[in-house]
Amino acid sequence: MIRAAVMTEPNAPIEIRAFPPPVLEPCAVLLKTLASEVCGTDVHLWHGRLSGVPYPIIPGHVSVGEVLETGGEVLDMNGRPVEPGDRVTFLDVHETCHRCYYCLVAKASTRCPHRKVYGITYSASEGLLGGWSEQIYLKPGVQVIPMSARVDPELWIAGGCGLPTALHAIDRAEIRLGDRVLIQGAGPVGLNACALANASGAGWVGVIDAVPQRLEAARKMGADQCFTLTASLLSDVRTATGGRGADIVIEASGRPEAVAQGCDMARDHARYVVVGQYTDNGSVEINPHTAINRKHLEIRGCWGSDMSHFWRAMEVIDRFHDRFDWRQVISQRYTLDQINDALADVEARRVVKAVILPNG
Amino acid sequence: MIRAAVMTEPNAPIEIRAFPPPVLEPCAVLLKTLASEVCGTDVHLWHGRLSGVPYPIIPGHVSVGEVLETGGEVLDMNGRPVEPGDRVTFLDVHETCHRCYYCLVAKASTRCPHRKVYGITYSASEGLLGGWSEQIYLKPGVQVIPMSARVDPELWIAGGCGLPTALHAIDRAEIRLGDRVLIQGAGPVGLNACALANASGAGWVGVIDAVPQRLEAARKMGADQCFTLTASLLSDVRTATGGRGADIVIEASGRPEAVAQGCDMARDHARYVVVGQYTDNGSVEINPHTAINRKHLEIRGCWGSDMSHFWRAMEVIDRFHDRFDWRQVISQRYTLDQINDALADVEARRVVKAVILPNG
Amino acid sequence: MIRAAVMTEPNAPIEIRAFPPPVLEPCAVLLKTLASEVCGTDVHLWHGRLSGVPYPIIPGHVSVGEVLETGGEVLDMNGRPVEPGDRVTFLDVHETCHRCYYCLVAKASTRCPHRKVYGITYSASEGLLGGWSEQIYLKPGVQVIPMSARVDPELWIAGGCGLPTALHAIDRAEIRLGDRVLIQGAGPVGLNACALANASGAGWVGVIDAVPQRLEAARKMGADQCFTLTASLLSDVRTATGGRGADIVIEASGRPEAVAQGCDMARDHARYVVVGQYTDNGSVEINPHTAINRKHLEIRGCWGSDMSHFWRAMEVIDRFHDRFDWRQVISQRYTLDQINDALADVEARRVVKAVILPNG
Amino acid sequence: MIRAAVMTEPNAPIEIRAFPPPVLEPCAVLLKTLASEVCGTDVHLWHGRLSGVPYPIIPGHVSVGEVLETGGEVLDMNGRPVEPGDRVTFLDVHETCHRCYYCLVAKASTRCPHRKVYGITYSASEGLLGGWSEQIYLKPGVQVIPMSARVDPELWIAGGCGLPTALHAIDRAEIRLGDRVLIQGAGPVGLNACALANASGAGWVGVIDAVPQRLEAARKMGADQCFTLTASLLSDVRTATGGRGADIVIEASGRPEAVAQGCDMARDHARYVVVGQYTDNGSVEINPHTAINRKHLEIRGCWGSDMSHFWRAMEVIDRFHDRFDWRQVISQRYTLDQINDALADVEARRVVKAVILPNG
Repeated sequence: MIRAAVMTEPNAPIEIRAFPPPVLEPCAVLLKTLASEVCGTDVHLWHGRLSGVPYPIIPGHVSVGEVLETGGEVLDMNGRPVEPGDRVTFLDVHETCHRCYYCLVAKASTRCPHRKVYGITYSASEGLLGGWSEQIYLKPGVQVIPMSARVDPELWIAGGCGLPTALHAIDRAEIRLGDRVLIQGAGPVGLNACALANASGAGWVGVIDAVPQRLEAARKMGADQCFTLTASLLSDVRTATGGRGADIVIEASGRPEAVAQGCDMARDHARYVVVGQYTDNGSVEINPHTAINRKHLEIRGCWGSDMSHFWRAMEVIDRFHDRFDWRQVISQRYTLDQINDALADVEARRVVKAVILPNG
Repeated sequence: MIRAAVMTEPNAPIEIRAFPPPVLEPCAVLLKTLASEVCGTDVHLWHGRLSGVPYPIIPGHVSVGEVLETGGEVLDMNGRPVEPGDRVTFLDVHETCHRCYYCLVAKASTRCPHRKVYGITYSASEGLLGGWSEQIYLKPGVQVIPMSARVDPELWIAGGCGLPTALHAIDRAEIRLGDRVLIQGAGPVGLNACALANASGAGWVGVIDAVPQRLEAARKMGADQCFTLTASLLSDVRTATGGRGADIVIEASGRPEAVAQGCDMARDHARYVVVGQYTDNGSVEINPHTAINRKHLEIRGCWGSDMSHFWRAMEVIDRFHDRFDWRQVISQRYTLDQINDALADVEARRVVKAVILPNG
Repeated sequence: MIRAAVMTEPNAPIEIRAFPPPVLEPCAVLLKTLASEVCGTDVHLWHGRLSGVPYPIIPGHVSVGEVLETGGEVLDMNGRPVEPGDRVTFLDVHETCHRCYYCLVAKASTRCPHRKVYGITYSASEGLLGGWSEQIYLKPGVQVIPMSARVDPELWIAGGCGLPTALHAIDRAEIRLGDRVLIQGAGPVGLNACALANASGAGWVGVIDAVPQRLEAARKMGADQCFTLTASLLSDVRTATGGRGADIVIEASGRPEAVAQGCDMARDHARYVVVGQYTDNGSVEINPHTAINRKHLEIRGCWGSDMSHFWRAMEVIDRFHDRFDWRQVISQRYTLDQINDALADVEARRVVKAVILPNG
Repeated sequence: MIRAAVMTEPNAPIEIRAFPPPVLEPCAVLLKTLASEVCGTDVHLWHGRLSGVPYPIIPGHVSVGEVLETGGEVLDMNGRPVEPGDRVTFLDVHETCHRCYYCLVAKASTRCPHRKVYGITYSASEGLLGGWSEQIYLKPGVQVIPMSARVDPELWIAGGCGLPTALHAIDRAEIRLGDRVLIQGAGPVGLNACALANASGAGWVGVIDAVPQRLEAARKMGADQCFTLTASLLSDVRTATGGRGADIVIEASGRPEAVAQGCDMARDHARYVVVGQYTDNGSVEINPHTAINRKHLEIRGCWGSDMSHFWRAMEVIDRFHDRFDWRQVISQRYTLDQINDALADVEARRVVKAVILPNG
């Protein structure tokens, strides 16, 4: 039997349950889990803040595993067969349909209404479809990415789901060499965005957060200058950006009021990527004359990530693994039996990223 | 002596004053005014709603004239000499510096801090620098555009300053063949945007306005469907756009709350151009999760217009002069002595566009 | 039994063969063919000029049919069920994998190596997978597009495969209002590109072809000016475009030497879309200093079309069906028994587009 | 009197001549030259390979100087007054008109027909308008850029005119994080492009050159892998790029045949920036079917640089001065009296970049 941690309903303790070994469909893959994560989304799931979640679920959306078995030949995106013993990760977003208007005409597959997500939108009754489990069942068609030799499971979990999300945001930011880039928020997405902005040739990277330790982390991820949420924030940012404001602003804070502030801190004709507002935290007052129209500002919402971001995230973390200190966010490892502690530690912000090692 | 209508201070009656004939600097051009306009901005000027206006001023920013004299050889943008007797218009925005950060690095010359505008930011003490005058003095460097043979002075005034502004907005909208385009507001900018969206190959053009007559005008400018500000507006737009919302939305209403509505009426991953908020009418509540982030929306502020829009506006109105009914907005012509009536009629919305014929 | 026209091998007469009625797999669709086409590709196929073709084949890639039967519920891209009696067309390109590097990372699905095409890359032994047949079998996953009420089968065939191809090229051209657009070649792709450039708001559309009748057709598809291949072509185009060359050039001629000429006829910093070179007709000498570098030219190759172009093509031809004379290219209809005549007429250029009516 | 090195006519020895001190017009600036360069263009000038050069000339287009005097207040692009004693560089391209079609409508100011260039298109009879002189006269309107504290004159000369040119090419390349970037040619533009591609977040940078020492230099400028011009080049590049070819190719070699090779080494739907062909070295055979159309390739010619590239080049070299070894190309310094040696050494490729120190 295979042990997995199950979130049975909102606000109830996580339980360990045993599942029978799955029988593989053609083109499915079975993984022994090497590492998974507890991220902020899991805290939201635990409190029932997301709608449409089919509790009980096995959480854990970004994970690394070792291939135990495949249902016949399964190819990775390079056309190479996936073999037992391979270390792989996989795109947690599945069932993007590639048949609907959003996938094919709007070319915005992150808005495909058929998307499902491992660890979030599959019920535990459907199988081992989450990372808090000794084994993970990859349904036919789940995209498998081989781990680069230089990227061990913990490094990949340290990047976590924030890395492809931040890569998507950075793509949408279209940073040019020398741009002054301001990041709002030094959580998982913000820290990754900080490193990626620096890696993209930004001339200066500034980061804003209320928590000094998070700003310390940002320094190790390539921030040139850090700001706390003081009354002089706007003028401090102006001073740091030649009096004009930032060329690029990336919102990764989740606070609605940050969006109004971000408009103010951007220079005229800047680009402003709003990626942090992935749950509904309410509204904010915006003056469209001063914040958008007169500024000739460009605001780009950024939702989720797709296979291109996930695939390139592996290449990017392989390339820059020793330039930025991704591993610093991992201070604690947990077994399946310690999962309630892990959830509590993330919620209390005692750890930024809890690594789950289901096989010890 | 040359007669001109002078706005001496906010809310005072316009006065007719006489000015001495100007002496031409090298590369200046003197025009006999064939037509000028009273537009909404003039009403704002009259009520003192714009800051930094050096009253007394001679209003009138978009105008057509016949060349009386040039200060030596003056070339138009095609490199052809401007000759006495030529019918021309000119870019009212002047002194864009082409030396500052915004002009040269940000490439957002509409945000150049040195810009001046005929009829708005020049004092009457500086010369005949507005269109409500028998003659207009074009300072050295003012860009002259020859009138196309098919575009008479009234047609150009009918397009007015709204035409290049709308062209700028349409450029930023990047309409693709078949796109469903929704325009908020059927004033001068909105009506021009309506015609230009249709001319750009939109598959459907919808227009929203509170005033039925304005929607009638929109029909003649290429609107396929019109909407008033009813409670069912959002669902009506959804129904009209395949249930998804518009591919492109263009805000040309000036109402802050329109911006929140526009986000809602756009489909996921749409583009939303905000061009109507050129004066400060206050703020609006926006939910950045639902309106921007989850929608993967792109919002583009659009400020003013530059020589490319002005130049192409002449080509565009020449091309499409008989497909859309630009002239419908002109119901009344006024001499200089009737200027107070013209202003009152525009303010009371008795006429959409008042044509001023300073030489009768 | 179902009758179909089979191309057994290159250069052999087309034969009529009888096939058993297909048994539908789940999600498959069976069509009664209302109309199909003979296009230039079919002539190439007949002469064996394409590699990897699995003769014998049933040609005919763009077709219209009436639904006879579906294998359970099949949804179109709007999520509506396909029902017997519906008039539909379908995307001839099938098996685009949406799993490979080109589909997911490069986002260039027209370069997916797994693509298959009805009427070209399927053998007759695989089923009724081409339009020269009384019935067409749509394999599971083939994308179905309902015919607009205003688009009858012949109009869709008149647009043919050239319409989505031209739409793709026009997308890549990024025409802006007032642009002077030059089209090289007035064959099926060029004529469609001509109409679509006009519909996109071009300020002027010029078309070049060696054959006067084709230029006559271009006039009816929105061309403002036509050019034959004379010695003065370059200077004639310059004169027609303000002395600078065209803002946008679209190559749809298939002649390699046209590519060098197109570079010369484009203005500095123009965009040049090369869409016509879909078979290998050899090389051309290009001077990269004068043709590319000093010109600051942008050349965009354009290969095939995807579902977005096909889907939008239906919307576009519905929108503009009465502005341009698409039907003029159809001068002759043929039954299955007349298919050898149809092929001979297209090859001899006696007809531009041969409509096949397999059910008479 | 002021000493300057004058190229009197093609192929004649450079002569030292004395000029009277200039009288400053309003807004002019007089510099004491701290450093100038001999670059490949100067060799072309010496052999008369450029047309329209008004010999005798004072060569030297990129230079650094100390301000001796200004004609009244002169502001730099940040709006700060230029003061005697300031260390500055300046944009050698002058008289870009900002009034013509190319400047204002096409927004391609590097194609403005009115451009003039210090050290190339000004005659010595017009003044001290080149860097091979003890003093340089900056005409009114020449754009002045203050030297960053971390960028000494030799470092700026080491970047030289190749740095803003490469920055322009990199902008046009639109590199995304992780892209595999291939550079053809390791001369001044290629070496700068190599460093800037690396700084932009490329996942891999490959460089091709025939000369091993140049490839050594490329290694110090961020190249991951180097290639010589062997028969296996194409397959070697394919192997190095996952079998697909490079995501981005930048041609900086000047050889026409490189353009055909570059098309072959690019992956499908790649971008290919052609920047190296700034003199006419003849033609090359290109197969538009295989090289452009079927590849869905995008080729972007890149001509010159403008103030944005020059301005950002200062920020970029300041940012990355210690990551890449710009100074390695400077092996030799020369006084004005040694200028013929400098020219001979550059021509013989004994030095990559000859620094001229006119004041010793």
